[in-house]
Amino acid sequence: MNNIKGFIDKLNQLNYKSMYNNDFILTWEKTFDELQAVFTVADALRYLRENNKSTRIFDSGLGISLFRDNSTRTRFSFASACNLLGLEVQDLEENKSQIAHGETVRETANMISFMADVVGIRDDMYIGKGNKYMRDFSRYVKEGNDDGILEQKPTIVNLQCDIDHPTQTMSDMLHLINHYGGIENLKGKKIAMTWAYSPSYGKPLSVPQGIIGLMTRMGMDVVLAHPEGYEVMSDIEELAKSNASKSGGSYRKTNSMKDAFRDADIVYPKSWAPFNAMEKRTKLYGDRDFEKIDKLEQELLNQNKEFRDWQCTKDMMKLTNNSEALYMHCLPADITGVSCEYGEVEEEVFNKYRVPLYKQASYKPYIIASMILLSKIKNPSELLSKLDKRNVNRKFL
Amino acid sequence: MNNIKGFIDKLNQLNYKSMYNNDFILTWEKTFDELQAVFTVADALRYLRENNKSTRIFDSGLGISLFRDNSTRTRFSFASACNLLGLEVQDLEENKSQIAHGETVRETANMISFMADVVGIRDDMYIGKGNKYMRDFSRYVKEGNDDGILEQKPTIVNLQCDIDHPTQTMSDMLHLINHYGGIENLKGKKIAMTWAYSPSYGKPLSVPQGIIGLMTRMGMDVVLAHPEGYEVMSDIEELAKSNASKSGGSYRKTNSMKDAFRDADIVYPKSWAPFNAMEKRTKLYGDRDFEKIDKLEQELLNQNKEFRDWQCTKDMMKLTNNSEALYMHCLPADITGVSCEYGEVEEEVFNKYRVPLYKQASYKPYIIASMILLSKIKNPSELLSKLDKRNVNRKFL
Amino acid sequence: MNNIKGFIDKLNQLNYKSMYNNDFILTWEKTFDELQAVFTVADALRYLRENNKSTRIFDSGLGISLFRDNSTRTRFSFASACNLLGLEVQDLEENKSQIAHGETVRETANMISFMADVVGIRDDMYIGKGNKYMRDFSRYVKEGNDDGILEQKPTIVNLQCDIDHPTQTMSDMLHLINHYGGIENLKGKKIAMTWAYSPSYGKPLSVPQGIIGLMTRMGMDVVLAHPEGYEVMSDIEELAKSNASKSGGSYRKTNSMKDAFRDADIVYPKSWAPFNAMEKRTKLYGDRDFEKIDKLEQELLNQNKEFRDWQCTKDMMKLTNNSEALYMHCLPADITGVSCEYGEVEEEVFNKYRVPLYKQASYKPYIIASMILLSKIKNPSELLSKLDKRNVNRKFL
Repeated sequence: MNNIKGFIDKLNQLNYKSMYNNDFILTWEKTFDELQAVFTVADALRYLRENNKSTRIFDSGLGISLFRDNSTRTRFSFASACNLLGLEVQDLEENKSQIAHGETVRETANMISFMADVVGIRDDMYIGKGNKYMRDFSRYVKEGNDDGILEQKPTIVNLQCDIDHPTQTMSDMLHLINHYGGIENLKGKKIAMTWAYSPSYGKPLSVPQGIIGLMTRMGMDVVLAHPEGYEVMSDIEELAKSNASKSGGSYRKTNSMKDAFRDADIVYPKSWAPFNAMEKRTKLYGDRDFEKIDKLEQELLNQNKEFRDWQCTKDMMKLTNNSEALYMHCLPADITGVSCEYGEVEEEVFNKYRVPLYKQASYKPYIIASMILLSKIKNPSELLSKLDKRNVNRKFL
Repeated sequence: MNNIKGFIDKLNQLNYKSMYNNDFILTWEKTFDELQAVFTVADALRYLRENNKSTRIFDSGLGISLFRDNSTRTRFSFASACNLLGLEVQDLEENKSQIAHGETVRETANMISFMADVVGIRDDMYIGKGNKYMRDFSRYVKEGNDDGILEQKPTIVNLQCDIDHPTQTMSDMLHLINHYGGIENLKGKKIAMTWAYSPSYGKPLSVPQGIIGLMTRMGMDVVLAHPEGYEVMSDIEELAKSNASKSGGSYRKTNSMKDAFRDADIVYPKSWAPFNAMEKRTKLYGDRDFEKIDKLEQELLNQNKEFRDWQCTKDMMKLTNNSEALYMHCLPADITGVSCEYGEVEEEVFNKYRVPLYKQASYKPYIIASMILLSKIKNPSELLSKLDKRNVNRKFL
Repeated sequence: MNNIKGFIDKLNQLNYKSMYNNDFILTWEKTFDELQAVFTVADALRYLRENNKSTRIFDSGLGISLFRDNSTRTRFSFASACNLLGLEVQDLEENKSQIAHGETVRETANMISFMADVVGIRDDMYIGKGNKYMRDFSRYVKEGNDDGILEQKPTIVNLQCDIDHPTQTMSDMLHLINHYGGIENLKGKKIAMTWAYSPSYGKPLSVPQGIIGLMTRMGMDVVLAHPEGYEVMSDIEELAKSNASKSGGSYRKTNSMKDAFRDADIVYPKSWAPFNAMEKRTKLYGDRDFEKIDKLEQELLNQNKEFRDWQCTKDMMKLTNNSEALYMHCLPADITGVSCEYGEVEEEVFNKYRVPLYKQASYKPYIIASMILLSKIKNPSELLSKLDKRNVNRKFL
């Protein structure tokens, strides 16, 4: 769209009222209209920035970055999103090996939020913990705000939990929308979310789960492929099935990567750890049984090795629709012969798709900023119009 | 007060001229009027922010956060205060185990202050060092400014030293002022600042010292209670006595927690390390005698255990005025059965007072911002009036 | 100059067009006019700030601080420069012991630059690596911008590499320009860049190389002095000779500190490691041969000790022009009897020159800000005029 009016018109057709003053934790808690509002505001913010218009809506205020796992990319995306809106980022570095409990979470949540408009949380290591932590945090700051302790209720944005990775999958989706020229064009496209071999261990399940939980809502034909033993959470598979039947798409699972790739329009080959093993590991961490944790790691690495042929090769890509499926990855990928001896993808395939891969990632700051804006601003249509007109440049001159 | 005029009228009755371009290091270096100016501006800033008026007074500039001890809460309070005024926070992470000396302090002070409007320092570990470090730092940046090296003299704010913890005690006091509906209503109130058992070791003395040094100026009846051997600095006790006699209050010490709690209006039960032991530890660190440091730690932990009954229990609370004393703590508290087996306070007592405890903490960002503002702005009354009128929102729309 | 017009007039006489949208990596890649533009804009920014005029040219945007070596001073200078222009600093902390390769650099460069207007890089540890890293980084973000991934191409500023330290040497030069009342007065001045003893090991070569590569362009008589075996890169020596012959100055090398000090107007005594040893160390790090690295360190420390008499003493200073040469150092200096037993400089000499030394350092934030501004703004003359007139204070009231 080449002016702001297009975005405003689009927004005005959507019902997203309940996003105001609300968190963004799982995509499937949001209506289809609400997801579309996120995409529309993200595109509008990008349009404004590309046209050197300031998108600052906060004169002061903090965005808290709370990572319970290392991350450079998502941390920078969150920082970029906050900066885009005028919030200053403060990092909270917690003891990563310790699982926080009730009273501590409640107190920390309040003590860091006196001036916080948003708290971005990444907590993906322990099954049954990350998502719960976000919800506890959210409840405690709501209470803090109700009790007159906090001047505002900070919005919680899920930057990856044990269940979903909404800022990633929403960026992936916006990439697809722009790639195919509209959300309506995703209908009937076949996407293969498949496991791939990696020499590392314990990668989170949130991406495959998030992808099958989101893409099934677009009327797409979603296939999840993985070797036996690499199951994802069964609840999310049930959700995917139910989504697909409502949206007019389909969902199925296969243990063959080839089966998934055949005639696919989009492939998303990526390693993850088996759900059962991650559940076991969480329990072992709870018991602080580091000997068994090490043993489990060795078992999983050995198990992985049996599936080294689960790789996105040039030959595999030939199976896809017109041999030209769009290759996706949340990055960084394990590239065979580049970052490891055997990995998720062949160098030639990766290189061919580098530009779209980087573009895919480039949506994340705008998606996060959009999620924040829709929670913080009561009338986003009016806001976009005012930002367009207020004549403040991002870069002076 | 429901408009800015009230705060301005209050300010205009006070003489606080010498706060301009000055540091905030110890509360007892400030006049009663100056303390009131801090409370008034803190409340005014909170009023403006609650009414979505921007309190940015800096378009650019840095606030340096210099912590020689770990801290999440005070660090976030300082960051919030800086952000509230438009300063960007930069953390200086120094080698914590090393006590900085003359030339290094002078050079570092200048090298980090080229654009610094404020430097918040926390240095509470070593007796006789922390406060001295702040004063050295202050002297060096004043010289740097006089010599044309620094464009401005950064204000030093004491975020906790070996002697005082003024941002904590001033927040505590503002909490009491608002709780009792005015500073004049503190007269005659009994406050029990008492030691309490904690399974950890070496907690700073700055809170009990700061409390008896400040509360005695309000005409309050201040009682310090601790087991024999847990003395605070004798100078501060002398100061408390002298303050009390001037303010019409009283100061006394007891070795009985019950004696202190009896009929108290306010109780502040909190662990600290004996002054003598801390002095000894400082010497051992100077000698880098880590074997003796470990031995000292063990001795102190054993000594602590003898006083496990120094706990703020429901039964103890019954001794207080109407069984309803206001319970205070600088947080985090050691809660029996929650964060440790035996601690400073029973869970039931803590839970009952959670909301006021969090409110107590919520004043700190405003107290710090007020200290900065009063040092940086020549005419704070005029400033408040202009901030109220300039029609810049904190959150746009 | 006591108004902005002087700076603008000066700028209008210079041709610095090709600085727009360009990096600052080596001083000798820039024309004499371009260097003068950096000095002029740096002075103008300082003038504006001293007169409480806001120099913010960015309403939002990030400055990325990418240090592959520890640094407090340069990090704070970069942070100050970014803040001065309205950019928020984000630190990227990379694994320092690992030398990044192609694909990883390309991906990281893009992933952190979605909102980045400038990336300041310090990478001085490994010969043949640091400078190359900056150029790779620059190429990758240019491609990212061309491919529509990045909204803007971030400017790369070299905050110290294996070859040059342009933000240091340009600050040094601006200090000399202001000290001598104009760049034209540097002609014929003798500067002694000499090695000095330090009890530490492996200090980078970028300062001596940067100084002889820059000062020879000003018509100065540049003498490089060091013990045999402490050679710098021979390419840079060739460059210095060629510069000197063009500028009407001179360049020579000596193995005598006294020879260098005799009649010098400026002395810059500072330790560095021999180029050959650093090359060897880089190879050993590549092989991860830590045993040989430790052995090399010991050899170098022993070799250093033979040259303990290479110290800037009061007696040595008597050899200089009128016994009054300007003493320079990039700080921190190893001061005999203060920071070490034997060091680069006697305490009495250091103390005498402390104020000019700190002033020398105070130019760095402005030099960095100037480099950023000249790359980001198409018409800097017009910008300075508008900043002067727009009536926005740095500090409100």
